[in-house]
Amino acid sequence: MTPNAPHAHPAPTHRIPVAILGATGSVGQRFIERLVHHPWFRPAELVASERSRGKPYEEAVRWLQTTPLPNEVAALPVLGPDDPITARLIFSALDAEVAGEIEARHATEGRLVISNARNHRTHPQVPLLIPEVNPDHLALIAHQPWRGTGPGTALPTGGIITNPNCSTIGLALALKPLHDAFGLKEVRVATLQAVSGAGIPGVSSMEILDNVIPYISGEEAKLESEPLKILGTLTPNAHTITPAQFTVSAQCNRVPVVDGHMANVWVTLERPPASPEALREAWANFRPLTLALGLPTAPARPLIVHEGEAHPQPRLHRDLEDGMAVSTGRLRATATGAFAFVVLSHNTVRGAAGGAILCGELALKQGLVDAHPSP
Amino acid sequence: MTPNAPHAHPAPTHRIPVAILGATGSVGQRFIERLVHHPWFRPAELVASERSRGKPYEEAVRWLQTTPLPNEVAALPVLGPDDPITARLIFSALDAEVAGEIEARHATEGRLVISNARNHRTHPQVPLLIPEVNPDHLALIAHQPWRGTGPGTALPTGGIITNPNCSTIGLALALKPLHDAFGLKEVRVATLQAVSGAGIPGVSSMEILDNVIPYISGEEAKLESEPLKILGTLTPNAHTITPAQFTVSAQCNRVPVVDGHMANVWVTLERPPASPEALREAWANFRPLTLALGLPTAPARPLIVHEGEAHPQPRLHRDLEDGMAVSTGRLRATATGAFAFVVLSHNTVRGAAGGAILCGELALKQGLVDAHPSP
Amino acid sequence: MTPNAPHAHPAPTHRIPVAILGATGSVGQRFIERLVHHPWFRPAELVASERSRGKPYEEAVRWLQTTPLPNEVAALPVLGPDDPITARLIFSALDAEVAGEIEARHATEGRLVISNARNHRTHPQVPLLIPEVNPDHLALIAHQPWRGTGPGTALPTGGIITNPNCSTIGLALALKPLHDAFGLKEVRVATLQAVSGAGIPGVSSMEILDNVIPYISGEEAKLESEPLKILGTLTPNAHTITPAQFTVSAQCNRVPVVDGHMANVWVTLERPPASPEALREAWANFRPLTLALGLPTAPARPLIVHEGEAHPQPRLHRDLEDGMAVSTGRLRATATGAFAFVVLSHNTVRGAAGGAILCGELALKQGLVDAHPSP
Amino acid sequence: MTPNAPHAHPAPTHRIPVAILGATGSVGQRFIERLVHHPWFRPAELVASERSRGKPYEEAVRWLQTTPLPNEVAALPVLGPDDPITARLIFSALDAEVAGEIEARHATEGRLVISNARNHRTHPQVPLLIPEVNPDHLALIAHQPWRGTGPGTALPTGGIITNPNCSTIGLALALKPLHDAFGLKEVRVATLQAVSGAGIPGVSSMEILDNVIPYISGEEAKLESEPLKILGTLTPNAHTITPAQFTVSAQCNRVPVVDGHMANVWVTLERPPASPEALREAWANFRPLTLALGLPTAPARPLIVHEGEAHPQPRLHRDLEDGMAVSTGRLRATATGAFAFVVLSHNTVRGAAGGAILCGELALKQGLVDAHPSP
Repeated sequence: MTPNAPHAHPAPTHRIPVAILGATGSVGQRFIERLVHHPWFRPAELVASERSRGKPYEEAVRWLQTTPLPNEVAALPVLGPDDPITARLIFSALDAEVAGEIEARHATEGRLVISNARNHRTHPQVPLLIPEVNPDHLALIAHQPWRGTGPGTALPTGGIITNPNCSTIGLALALKPLHDAFGLKEVRVATLQAVSGAGIPGVSSMEILDNVIPYISGEEAKLESEPLKILGTLTPNAHTITPAQFTVSAQCNRVPVVDGHMANVWVTLERPPASPEALREAWANFRPLTLALGLPTAPARPLIVHEGEAHPQPRLHRDLEDGMAVSTGRLRATATGAFAFVVLSHNTVRGAAGGAILCGELALKQGLVDAHPSP
Repeated sequence: MTPNAPHAHPAPTHRIPVAILGATGSVGQRFIERLVHHPWFRPAELVASERSRGKPYEEAVRWLQTTPLPNEVAALPVLGPDDPITARLIFSALDAEVAGEIEARHATEGRLVISNARNHRTHPQVPLLIPEVNPDHLALIAHQPWRGTGPGTALPTGGIITNPNCSTIGLALALKPLHDAFGLKEVRVATLQAVSGAGIPGVSSMEILDNVIPYISGEEAKLESEPLKILGTLTPNAHTITPAQFTVSAQCNRVPVVDGHMANVWVTLERPPASPEALREAWANFRPLTLALGLPTAPARPLIVHEGEAHPQPRLHRDLEDGMAVSTGRLRATATGAFAFVVLSHNTVRGAAGGAILCGELALKQGLVDAHPSP
Repeated sequence: MTPNAPHAHPAPTHRIPVAILGATGSVGQRFIERLVHHPWFRPAELVASERSRGKPYEEAVRWLQTTPLPNEVAALPVLGPDDPITARLIFSALDAEVAGEIEARHATEGRLVISNARNHRTHPQVPLLIPEVNPDHLALIAHQPWRGTGPGTALPTGGIITNPNCSTIGLALALKPLHDAFGLKEVRVATLQAVSGAGIPGVSSMEILDNVIPYISGEEAKLESEPLKILGTLTPNAHTITPAQFTVSAQCNRVPVVDGHMANVWVTLERPPASPEALREAWANFRPLTLALGLPTAPARPLIVHEGEAHPQPRLHRDLEDGMAVSTGRLRATATGAFAFVVLSHNTVRGAAGGAILCGELALKQGLVDAHPSP
Repeated sequence: MTPNAPHAHPAPTHRIPVAILGATGSVGQRFIERLVHHPWFRPAELVASERSRGKPYEEAVRWLQTTPLPNEVAALPVLGPDDPITARLIFSALDAEVAGEIEARHATEGRLVISNARNHRTHPQVPLLIPEVNPDHLALIAHQPWRGTGPGTALPTGGIITNPNCSTIGLALALKPLHDAFGLKEVRVATLQAVSGAGIPGVSSMEILDNVIPYISGEEAKLESEPLKILGTLTPNAHTITPAQFTVSAQCNRVPVVDGHMANVWVTLERPPASPEALREAWANFRPLTLALGLPTAPARPLIVHEGEAHPQPRLHRDLEDGMAVSTGRLRATATGAFAFVVLSHNTVRGAAGGAILCGELALKQGLVDAHPSP
């Protein structure tokens, strides 16, 4: 089944209740902010640590978003990690310390889990999903070991989908059209990452004011491996992914910016064109399947190519397309035949909560979400 | 004559009066801060724009250094650009708009000009000098077209020495031992540059708070060309420099940091060693000639290799060795045989005023400064 | 005629073309951002300096807003300061250096000018207008010396309305209910003001990163005088304002924040209540006339009282009510019978462009805007 | 005995070993930085939490100072909280959660403890000491309940001295000459405090970048009470302090500044002079006893009055007198007879480690430190 097949599943006729794991953290807050008015999903169960259990959400959370804490969830009692959940679709913003086991349990119980944690990303049957880039990787779910069955159905409904690392998503989306058109051979990327990527409390202000930290634990390894899986190829039996065959070398820096991950990228191509204009065209002609599926939060322009000599910039462009666009700019050729450019994406929207919600929309449209459970 | 020849000129027995061009700007202030207690040089003539002419220095300047405006210069009347100058050694912090002509005039009148401006950097007979890296390039001066003769001597005494761009200096110093040991083939560098590099007023706070600007006018071109001249070879007749034969590709970013330019660097080597340890040794064994010459502000450790996993950092390490050290760290090999590392240097000290003063000390030691003019 | 009289003028049936003076600056950009989708007004004429004259707006401006430069104005040719204007309503973001004369000329030619500049604020017949606070002051316009007559009408249509200083607006709005209920005797206010208040380039990043500047030229004088006029009383003949009789002492600081002016306020009251609860009630019961008039951008909650122990904060609350709300919080009594609290408002929205547009809406509703000029 | 009595104790002939409690934290690091080259004291025992016990200091600490971790202490094994200590003088940078009991125990064992923690500050027999302001309050120690006796002496040697809160110190030093000359009646103070005041990790970067937090837990209460004790009078029997009789009302804000607490102050005086010039003179004539005692780190200018219209500023002036000066500026009269001014001090130097070390020097000079313990 291809994503845009005529038999794509219809949009739900009512808002499906969803659960959010890690609901009080930075990404959890973003999930709530973006789900309270979502046409398909409704944040119904908010799960946090044992310490928050039973408190109204507004008391359990230190809300740090620029939109007010939504009335819709203010009084919702927070569930503890062991409380039973009725939602069939789960968005997980759990820390990696605990995410692995909890997410697997929910999948076994027949729920579809869309996770921001790194734990299951490298599992051969777990899609590392960017809906615009590798929607076909969803077929892996049928072969997951945890695949459980929910109530009122004999069909398996559980599974795990992972969102790539926040700095990977922007990079992979920008690389996709280039890999398709010219074949990637080598990628070098230096990142300038916002502090929100480290969550709350995350980076101490003493460490980052008037400073740059040229190291983010584990980040370079993710940037060097995740794009290969994302741009890899589903094997004919859909059992696994053959990774793409280019190399990535990453240097990651934390900078005093609230939101928005920048990257300076160099690509060496298998079939390099004569001029950067060809790369610009490849980006301009990028027509992902998401554009055809009517997903509510899919950006009309997933990839925006900036022409301003000093663009894109985090503060000015991170919120384009409601934070779901990836911006590129400053494209030019180097003296040795490589191409250099800049990528920007909103790390807690496109790179976390917003990206995961789009995965959920795609999964629903593909029939992977149990939208109409029998009572 | 080689820099460490036994007949190196002696240190002066009294402090030589020097002039500072552009004395009220950001780099001009740094010159004054570092010269008021200098054992060889004394800031005697402060030159600024026509608007400041005649005012006491303390009234003409908006002092933005963290040390107080020195009493030694507070009452000095500022000279205008056309006022006569008696000093035989000049440090220039002039803007490139006016530096070219003024500096050439002073050289013609027999003065030695050490300039931070870009105007004369690419001239074939002008050394682009880092005392630890290419002291032999000073021999070019004998062939400069402006070379004039000062009062009381029949020998030519004038000339122009240029300081490299603030982001080039740290990079070139870190590259020097690697180029000598392994031969550089290709360099890629992504910079994270402090706002002080743009002077005062420079970067608007509206543009840089909570932001990164992925563009600095003209900077990438300088980073891509200057290291080739600095690491180039003096021709046998000392008439010019044969540039080094590697390529540099640069991406430059402005970040909200006050002082300290960081860079993420990848080097591809002609004769790559098996492990990064060999590069670390090349850095550790770097023994520039400056160490032997007794130059007052030459750092004991011009190149400091950091082992901390998140070091070096601008706020923590920019002031090492009184701001004259270049810090490197996070050295590692990439999957494709290149090496990645981080470089940090203080852009207005090592990269501007401090670096230029060290050039002046070397020039004096080499006999290029007219230390004892007849009355 | 009172603002909420039954014979308030109807909303226009089409969008009235307006001109923006100083259209390329920081506040000018905010005017455009907020007018392109305004239901009553349409940005039709963009006026800037002679240097920008004739250029398409997108080329003349360095757009620094987080929403993209609107297509509606991108190609509009910028008018020079002396070009003829056809709009009957003008929003002025001119610098005080030039605003006085230009604004007076337009008023003389029968246009209604709503200005952010300080030049005419202290003129006895010019309203210093906050629509929620002193809408009746609009009656002053009938007595203005510049009051001219536009084309196709025998009635005078010109005049000048001024917006208070960006830091005054939040303060005056918070003071209004307290002055009405308890009588203000003395106000002390220490501000923490965002850099956007200084425009572009405004504050140099070298001056404000890792720093606070405890001085803003002219700001304290404005804060100490403007609230007295705003909270003053229209004389019976509507010829002038009798200023309120309390005193204000201000200390103003610039802090490294992009948008949002904070203030720490102490008020000593003529008739102090026993507890701060009474002040909280006065704020909660504030029902300005704007709520009844159906003005498109009047905030539903012009004054929001925060209960969080560390609220309000610039980054979290400056955008409440689309940037038009004034936030207060941390209300408490002092040991000497005064009351302390915090005020926050968005300085370039509520304190500049947004506030001025609301003035325009009120003026139109009051019949002061020539909404249907004969051809 | 008065501090400047001719029989003041002599300086020690060797460096006295001291212990530092909380040695790995932000203030603990400052203690070490300032003690490694101290002429009288030598950091000999570094105490931290159980987790760090036994590790070399350089492994136990995350060093965040801009000077390198000193070699003198790098290899010192960190002591745990229950390990025995031999030093007779202790500097405590402990958290208030644990400081109370531990400090009391050391005093009972005959050690002199100089503490930055708040626990004992309000005890009637504990001096809240600023050596320039209230050196006579040291006489309280003789009456402390913990006063123990050390080895090799029959005389009591133990006791507790506390350093005021970091924001109190600058304020109290600036108030002292005004209180002496004119009598303080009422003080209002709005602070703009640096993030280092909250320690490490302290304030999350997510909370403070592009933001101000108008609340610091417990800070306002300290600022409203501590100056009254510091400027209070020792009772004739030296048993306690009669607090000064003015009132303080404080509003405290956290701002994105690394180091340096600013304050906007209004003072109402009992005997107000006609003009601010008299206050300026009172400050200029301030001659604390510390100037006469030859204390090694006592600043030559403890109080610096700035005349620049926008001075003092944290980044420019926090390091004056090696961080030990308090800066004032922008002095002016208000319309109601009060006076307004700005105060700045370095919160982790003057306001913490540096201030405490100066207390230690004064205590030694007064004979309270057991400088020559018998073996």
